[in-house]
Amino acid sequence: MTEQRGRLVVISGPSGAGKSTVIARLMQRRQNLCFSVSATTRDPRPGEVDGKDYFYVTREAFDRMVETDALLEHAEYVGNCYGTPRDYVLQRMEEGMHVLLDIEVQGAKQVYAKMPDAIMIFLVPPSLRELKNRLCGRGTDSEEKIRGRLERALAEYSEAQNAGFYQYIIINDDPEVAALEMDAILTAEQCRFSERKSILSEV
Amino acid sequence: MTEQRGRLVVISGPSGAGKSTVIARLMQRRQNLCFSVSATTRDPRPGEVDGKDYFYVTREAFDRMVETDALLEHAEYVGNCYGTPRDYVLQRMEEGMHVLLDIEVQGAKQVYAKMPDAIMIFLVPPSLRELKNRLCGRGTDSEEKIRGRLERALAEYSEAQNAGFYQYIIINDDPEVAALEMDAILTAEQCRFSERKSILSEV
Repeated sequence: MTEQRGRLVVISGPSGAGKSTVIARLMQRRQNLCFSVSATTRDPRPGEVDGKDYFYVTREAFDRMVETDALLEHAEYVGNCYGTPRDYVLQRMEEGMHVLLDIEVQGAKQVYAKMPDAIMIFLVPPSLRELKNRLCGRGTDSEEKIRGRLERALAEYSEAQNAGFYQYIIINDDPEVAALEMDAILTAEQCRFSERKSILSEV
Repeated sequence: MTEQRGRLVVISGPSGAGKSTVIARLMQRRQNLCFSVSATTRDPRPGEVDGKDYFYVTREAFDRMVETDALLEHAEYVGNCYGTPRDYVLQRMEEGMHVLLDIEVQGAKQVYAKMPDAIMIFLVPPSLRELKNRLCGRGTDSEEKIRGRLERALAEYSEAQNAGFYQYIIINDDPEVAALEMDAILTAEQCRFSERKSILSEV
């Protein structure tokens, strides 16, 4: 079988659903998987490495990336700009790596418009009640903050339903099962007719 | 997670591609998978059991099944009729079983028209050269018969490409890998947004 090009994998889902845990387990299962590295206008923090944690760019350079359509998505957050460099993602995919993007529904919408063959996954907790338990269990957030997060989660559910581009839902009851399902999705997507149809023309 | 309804899984592919071997391995991996049982007008052979090997019906009964749209597909083969009973398939799916149908592209076309959410898989050998080797290796077929099978395989490739409904291609180089990929496809299909979206409305 010929070496396949990697795919872009977009994962969204409410904060507290356990995305990072599931992704960490998935990365233990597969070598051909990496995170995207974002471009940002914020200053590097001590210990952060350019090209590994972020690509640190000036506001001018960032604006130029936006203008030249060099970003798959971008957003501003507390005065700093963040974006996903298209070239970086495409290069890793060419190397056969699946590139993971952990972003909110609005960012996912931008990415999907530019990369319609991305694998679009929405990851949720087993229930909102369970999400509330998890957020309370952390013991780090005030009651008001937790209420805010739950409202945000509900809004994201509604956005995800209306978005129409999510292909898969992962229910994170057990992170190991969730990682196994994500692994299966990546394997299944490599078996797509569109990915392999050339074999039907090779005689 | 709630008990999910099973899916109809249609597998096509040239004779000699190794469908039965791959399916046998897949069945070792999963309990929730069964073959469909066909209705036929041919007489039972010694040892065959009605309702297990086939549903044995009269020509009259078969014609009535066709008229009442009780078959997902049907065909005549050396004077006998064969068909897939819709009710049997739906009932097993309700029980949570994935139901396998091993049929040619023309039959798959009939099934897909009636069950558009079936999982449609085309299984091929690594190459036609390899298919030829396998057919010769059996030592059971004449050269002419092998040439006929290869021509038939080529025709099926072309039919599969034109059909437009196959979602996945499995390349059977190693039957264990092929079974693993089919297993992953079934898992991934259970994660489909359409299968799980109700969780986004449960508050």
